[in-house]
Amino acid sequence: MTAIEPSGRQPKQSDVLIIGRWLLSMSGQPDPIEYGAVAIQADRIIETGRADELEKKYQAREVFHLPHHLIMPGLVNAHTHAAMTLFRGLADDLPLMDWLQGYIFPAERKLSDSLVYAGTQLACLEMLLSGTTTFCDMYLFEKSAAQAARDMNMRAVVGEVLYDFPSPNYGPLEAGFRYTEELIQQWQGDSLIYPAVEPHSPYTCSPDLLKKSKELAEKYNVSFIIHLAETRQEVRLIQERYGKNPIQHLASLGVLDHQVLADHCIWLEEQDIELLKERKVRVAHMPESNMKLASGVAPVPRLLDQGITVGLGTDGCASNNNLDLFQEMDMAAKLHKVFTADPTVMGAKTVLEMATIGGARAFGLEDEIGSLEPGKKADIIAVDLNQPHLVPLYNIYSQLVYAARGADVDSVWINGELLVKERRPVKADLERILAQARELKEQVLRFLNQ
Amino acid sequence: MTAIEPSGRQPKQSDVLIIGRWLLSMSGQPDPIEYGAVAIQADRIIETGRADELEKKYQAREVFHLPHHLIMPGLVNAHTHAAMTLFRGLADDLPLMDWLQGYIFPAERKLSDSLVYAGTQLACLEMLLSGTTTFCDMYLFEKSAAQAARDMNMRAVVGEVLYDFPSPNYGPLEAGFRYTEELIQQWQGDSLIYPAVEPHSPYTCSPDLLKKSKELAEKYNVSFIIHLAETRQEVRLIQERYGKNPIQHLASLGVLDHQVLADHCIWLEEQDIELLKERKVRVAHMPESNMKLASGVAPVPRLLDQGITVGLGTDGCASNNNLDLFQEMDMAAKLHKVFTADPTVMGAKTVLEMATIGGARAFGLEDEIGSLEPGKKADIIAVDLNQPHLVPLYNIYSQLVYAARGADVDSVWINGELLVKERRPVKADLERILAQARELKEQVLRFLNQ
Repeated sequence: MTAIEPSGRQPKQSDVLIIGRWLLSMSGQPDPIEYGAVAIQADRIIETGRADELEKKYQAREVFHLPHHLIMPGLVNAHTHAAMTLFRGLADDLPLMDWLQGYIFPAERKLSDSLVYAGTQLACLEMLLSGTTTFCDMYLFEKSAAQAARDMNMRAVVGEVLYDFPSPNYGPLEAGFRYTEELIQQWQGDSLIYPAVEPHSPYTCSPDLLKKSKELAEKYNVSFIIHLAETRQEVRLIQERYGKNPIQHLASLGVLDHQVLADHCIWLEEQDIELLKERKVRVAHMPESNMKLASGVAPVPRLLDQGITVGLGTDGCASNNNLDLFQEMDMAAKLHKVFTADPTVMGAKTVLEMATIGGARAFGLEDEIGSLEPGKKADIIAVDLNQPHLVPLYNIYSQLVYAARGADVDSVWINGELLVKERRPVKADLERILAQARELKEQVLRFLNQ
Repeated sequence: MTAIEPSGRQPKQSDVLIIGRWLLSMSGQPDPIEYGAVAIQADRIIETGRADELEKKYQAREVFHLPHHLIMPGLVNAHTHAAMTLFRGLADDLPLMDWLQGYIFPAERKLSDSLVYAGTQLACLEMLLSGTTTFCDMYLFEKSAAQAARDMNMRAVVGEVLYDFPSPNYGPLEAGFRYTEELIQQWQGDSLIYPAVEPHSPYTCSPDLLKKSKELAEKYNVSFIIHLAETRQEVRLIQERYGKNPIQHLASLGVLDHQVLADHCIWLEEQDIELLKERKVRVAHMPESNMKLASGVAPVPRLLDQGITVGLGTDGCASNNNLDLFQEMDMAAKLHKVFTADPTVMGAKTVLEMATIGGARAFGLEDEIGSLEPGKKADIIAVDLNQPHLVPLYNIYSQLVYAARGADVDSVWINGELLVKERRPVKADLERILAQARELKEQVLRFLNQ
């Protein structure tokens, strides 16, 4: 049990006390605690520990008794394109270029603030209901994505995608930098939204764009987030263009450091891994997307062996096609076992760390989220263990990674606020969001026929 | 629309009419039908088609209106060890031999009829709630497994595992053949349970055992089901012992023909695939287990190209760790794309076929189950599409394989009988089955300490 302040004799006030059959803090303290509890004051955790002790100690305004449930940190989605929920299943099982040029790019050319807002709302609803409390977004019209996440009470890292071509949102690149700077000024210091600078990739961004992005990220001390070494073609192209591979290319530009969150990192050479480690670069791993697009398998067990921070992400719904991080954990654990021919790699606890504190570290938010600890934000989920596929229970990590799924999440709190109760959204209007997404589908189909 | 008999002017009697927003028959007829319906008489489908037409035509005793749902065939789990639900999460992330010898074998040595009955009940409950209506089981104390499936009203292919060692169930091998013959005599002709002969594998079964098994399967015209070419070690061992690889070994014994359902088939050479095709051998594919145990990746796209029948299975819960075929479909589609570096292989429709009509063919039950067609058994599921992760809907196959999950199954019928309604079992006592499994966990842990 850990507390910010020593316990007094009089019951202390707290706003919320959540009591579960199990508590998994992911804090490095002994885990799990049977009959555990979390005490919350305003938007932060003030204590975690045994339920009987916390019940004596705190006089809470609201107490949640969850008799069959595991209380744990909300999951952290390290990389997605939230509004792409609107393209879920639009085109699958195609060669990459047919998929991009025949469907995704034409649809994206017609995007608008209202579509991105609606698509991000839908994504937030899906993520909330499957236990994700924080996500990192990279997309177009990102002011609307940020607003949608904020309105859905979700925690999000947001950044407008920057590249050398005119954008359907901001137009020419200079306007993109202005847009990004406005986004940062608008949201920096917010209790839920964290702006970032997000150049798309080395193959769509000139060296100049990358350097200016880095300057902007440094000016505001925000993350620099980029797709990196996702496909063999990218590596070949960058090699041809710059005589270096993508990692070396970024290093030579002077942009590769601890501020960088590199998405994918599939095609790495041994010296690249050294470089990522040395520069304290953080990595986001999206196994389902990498599998579905046949991009390849990132050397995640080796990255973890080197102590490199790795978060787990779903990528967008056009290449997944859902945002369920429980399923992503299962896929991550199993993919690397078969790929390395070693059933001991990517153990359940390691994978769960990637999806919680690993993601938090990937955004530099490890002091705020990613585990249940006094002083951290109260981003908490309750998983209903009273179900046939979660019985019997021998090992909580195995159960969460190999047997559970997003639908098992019963309750969700973000910033101490209850957002999902008994698998239903508390504040969001589910039927309205679904109806809106169905209508927008027709609009997307019209885009493709224009 | 297809019907057994031409439609008359008077409304016909039917027992049940199920009306859904979408109907996916998997019958080879145009799919899906928007606002579709299935008419059921006793345990069989009598007609499928447009809801408005079937509503006019049939006077049903019971009508189910499922306004947001997809009606489709129940899924078919081509290979599992149902009672191993009791070992779910007992030991994971271990080298294969540590896992088997340290945990699974010691636990299995103490198995009993009552444990297998309880474990199979739990498995049936999990499978029902995630949309599986038929499964193929291989385990010990299989009379109890058969009884459990029957009592849960599930369709199952069952066979006692046979090997050269004394069995915790039947003792010496001769008794195993007698036990299997009794199992066949007890269940052959049953409306739900289909007995089979199930020698464990070439590396645990002598040539004589395999030949006698084949004779028994021929005597009763039942399936001969065997683990085959699952690991490299197996291939090496069989090569050393018999101078042939496992496929060639079975062929040389004269047991390899259309009656054989071969589980796993990971380590195949080109001539093995030829042989499987020529002999009309059927294959069961269990990607999650193969990944988790790091066994390897079966060449399923090539098997399918050759027109070989492939069903999809979950394997047992000790190596998965759940029985959710929706998740298995997703894993199967994505694994082969990344493994072959080709995003076009294992398309969503192909994978859904594996999990329905493919599994039915794997058991020789394609005239009874696997699609919604007049004359087939009414094994039907309704998937609730009114959920954030299943909206919008562009392509029903993509949605089912890449976005849906077992928890989306709202209703299940087997033999025309409603077994799951609004995600809850109609007949089974969920709380009792869960409580029983929790108690048996303590027993399993005691086994390991003896």
